[in-house]
Amino acid sequence: MKEFELIKRYFAEQSITRKDVILGIGDDCAVILPAERQHIAITTDTLVAGVHFPLNTSARAIGHKVVAVSLSDLAAMGAEPAWLSLAITLPEISESWAADFSAGVFELCEFYNVQLIGGDTTQGPLSVTVTAQGYTPTDKFLTRSGAKVGDWLFVTENIGDAALALQYLQGQLDVEEVHRASIQTKLDFPKPRILAGQVLRDYASAAIDISDGLAADLSHICTASNVGASLVLDKLPISTALRESLPLMDAYKLALTGGDDYELLFTVAADNRVAMETALATTGVKITCIGQLDSSNKIKTLFNDESVCFDLQGFEHFSDK
Amino acid sequence: MKEFELIKRYFAEQSITRKDVILGIGDDCAVILPAERQHIAITTDTLVAGVHFPLNTSARAIGHKVVAVSLSDLAAMGAEPAWLSLAITLPEISESWAADFSAGVFELCEFYNVQLIGGDTTQGPLSVTVTAQGYTPTDKFLTRSGAKVGDWLFVTENIGDAALALQYLQGQLDVEEVHRASIQTKLDFPKPRILAGQVLRDYASAAIDISDGLAADLSHICTASNVGASLVLDKLPISTALRESLPLMDAYKLALTGGDDYELLFTVAADNRVAMETALATTGVKITCIGQLDSSNKIKTLFNDESVCFDLQGFEHFSDK
Repeated sequence: MKEFELIKRYFAEQSITRKDVILGIGDDCAVILPAERQHIAITTDTLVAGVHFPLNTSARAIGHKVVAVSLSDLAAMGAEPAWLSLAITLPEISESWAADFSAGVFELCEFYNVQLIGGDTTQGPLSVTVTAQGYTPTDKFLTRSGAKVGDWLFVTENIGDAALALQYLQGQLDVEEVHRASIQTKLDFPKPRILAGQVLRDYASAAIDISDGLAADLSHICTASNVGASLVLDKLPISTALRESLPLMDAYKLALTGGDDYELLFTVAADNRVAMETALATTGVKITCIGQLDSSNKIKTLFNDESVCFDLQGFEHFSDK
Repeated sequence: MKEFELIKRYFAEQSITRKDVILGIGDDCAVILPAERQHIAITTDTLVAGVHFPLNTSARAIGHKVVAVSLSDLAAMGAEPAWLSLAITLPEISESWAADFSAGVFELCEFYNVQLIGGDTTQGPLSVTVTAQGYTPTDKFLTRSGAKVGDWLFVTENIGDAALALQYLQGQLDVEEVHRASIQTKLDFPKPRILAGQVLRDYASAAIDISDGLAADLSHICTASNVGASLVLDKLPISTALRESLPLMDAYKLALTGGDDYELLFTVAADNRVAMETALATTGVKITCIGQLDSSNKIKTLFNDESVCFDLQGFEHFSDK
C-alpha cells in the first residue's frame, strides 16, 4: 500500500463540517477563513514512543492522547479548539494500526468539533506531532504570567493517577487489581479541560496544564508571574487508588512530580474566587484549592500547617537525574 | 542543560517583529490576531534523518531545508508565509548542533518575515516537523484541481540536481568536481518559490511544488483536475551538471522521478500564457514550458516529437520498489 492511499483512506475520511475550513486535506496546504475579531491560539506537541508513552500503548490510546495533549494546551489558554494538523512517523504500515489510531484521533475531534486539516506520514521510529489551533475572544486568553501575590491556587480533578499507572506498568510498584483499569484510563485517555478553560477566561489570573508535573508546572507560573507559592499537601486531590498504593508522602510526591495529568493548574484573585467557583460548578469539573501565591519566589510545601522538605524536580527530557 | 533552557536559548531568541503575533514562544500556546478578510493556508511536513536527508547532513542545512520544504507548500498555494511551529526530536543535546540548526531556520524566517511561534523538543531519533502558515487573499489561492484540457504545463528553474547530488553522495554515480558544490547546494538549501507563487495566483490554473518528483507531482495535478498530460522531454530544464553526469535519457528519468526539487509545477490557460510570462519575468525566476494537458487521463512522454516509454514512478515512502 502506498503512503498516499494510507493517508487518504484513514485521515481524509472525516467530512468537513466546520464552515471556516475552505479546503481540507489533499492539496499542498489546507485553507481556512478564520472568524473575524478572534485570536488564534496555536500549540505543537510531539509524543515519542518509549519516551511519552509506553511502547506497548494501543494505537487508539496513542491517537487519543496526542490529540488530548494538544487540546489541553488550548484549554490552558481558554481557547475553543478548531483545527488539527497531524504528522505521524511510523516504522511500517499496518492497516489495523492506522484504523485504530485514526479512531482515537477522531473520537476527540468529533467531540470538540475539531477538523483535521492536514498532516504528513513518514517512515521511521514511531512518533506523532500535532499542531492544534483554536479561537479565543480578542485579548481574552489565559497565560502563565498573570498571577499575583495573594491569589489562590487551584487544580482541576485528581492528580497523580497517570504517573501511578506508568510506575505500575514499569513494575516499580504494585496496585490493587480493583484500581488498575481506572488509572490506566487516566494514563491512556486523558481529558482536555476545554470547557473549564473557557469558563476560567473570565476569572483566572493565570493558568497552565499539568504535563511536566504539578510542581514543575507551578514553577513555570511562578517564574512567568514573578511570584512564589505555598502548596498545602493535605489538600492535594489524589485518588483512592494512589492513596492505597503508596505511603502518603510518597503518594504526594508522585502527584507533584509525576506529570502527564493534563489537568488545569490556575490562580484566581481572592475577589474572583466565589464567582469562579460558582461558574465552574456548572461544568461538572471538580476543583480544589491547594495553596496560595506569595512574594517568596520559592515553592514551599506545607503538611499539617508545618513546612516539609520535598525534592520537587518534575519530569524533564534530557534531565541529568 | 535542561530542555527548557535549550529551547529558550536558541528558539526564543528571534524577536517578535510581526504585528499579528500577540504572544510568541513561552506559554502553553502562541496567540495571533490574523489579518481580516484573508485566508490562512496551513501545511505540515516531517523530515526524518536517513529518509528525507542523509544522516551526515549539516545541522544548518537541516534547519534550512525543513523550513524551505514547508514554505514551498505555501508557495504552491500562492500564500505569503507568516508563522512557523517547529517540533524537533533529537537523540541528544548538542549546543553546537542547536546553534547551527537554529541559524538555518532563522535565515529563511528572517528573509521571508516569518515568526517562529512555538514548538516542542523531545528526545528520540532525529526528525523535525514543521507547521507553516501564511495568508492568501480571500478565494484567491492555487490548488491542484483547477487544470483544464489544453492548458500549458510549466516548471520553475531546473529540476533533477537534488536527486543527482543524493545519488552522488550514495556512490551510485560520479559527478565532475566542478559541479559538486552547486548540486549539493540544491539538495541542502532548496529555495521556496514564494514570490513566483504569489504572482501565479493571478494567472495559473493549478500548481504544486515538486517534492516527490515531477512525474509523481504532475500525476497529482492530473488526478485532482481529471486531465492527462503530454510531457516533452527535450524541453525539460536540466543543468549542465546533470547533462554531463548521465546519458541523456537517464538524466531525464532522474529529473522526472528524483524529487526534492521544490520547484513549482503549474498550468496556465493559453489565454493567460503571455501575461503570466510577462509577470513572472519581473521575479527573476526562470520558467520553462514542458508540455500540455489533454483529456487522456494519462501522462505521455515525447522525445523528438515521438512517444517514448518511461517508468515514471516517483519517490514514495513505503513503496514496494
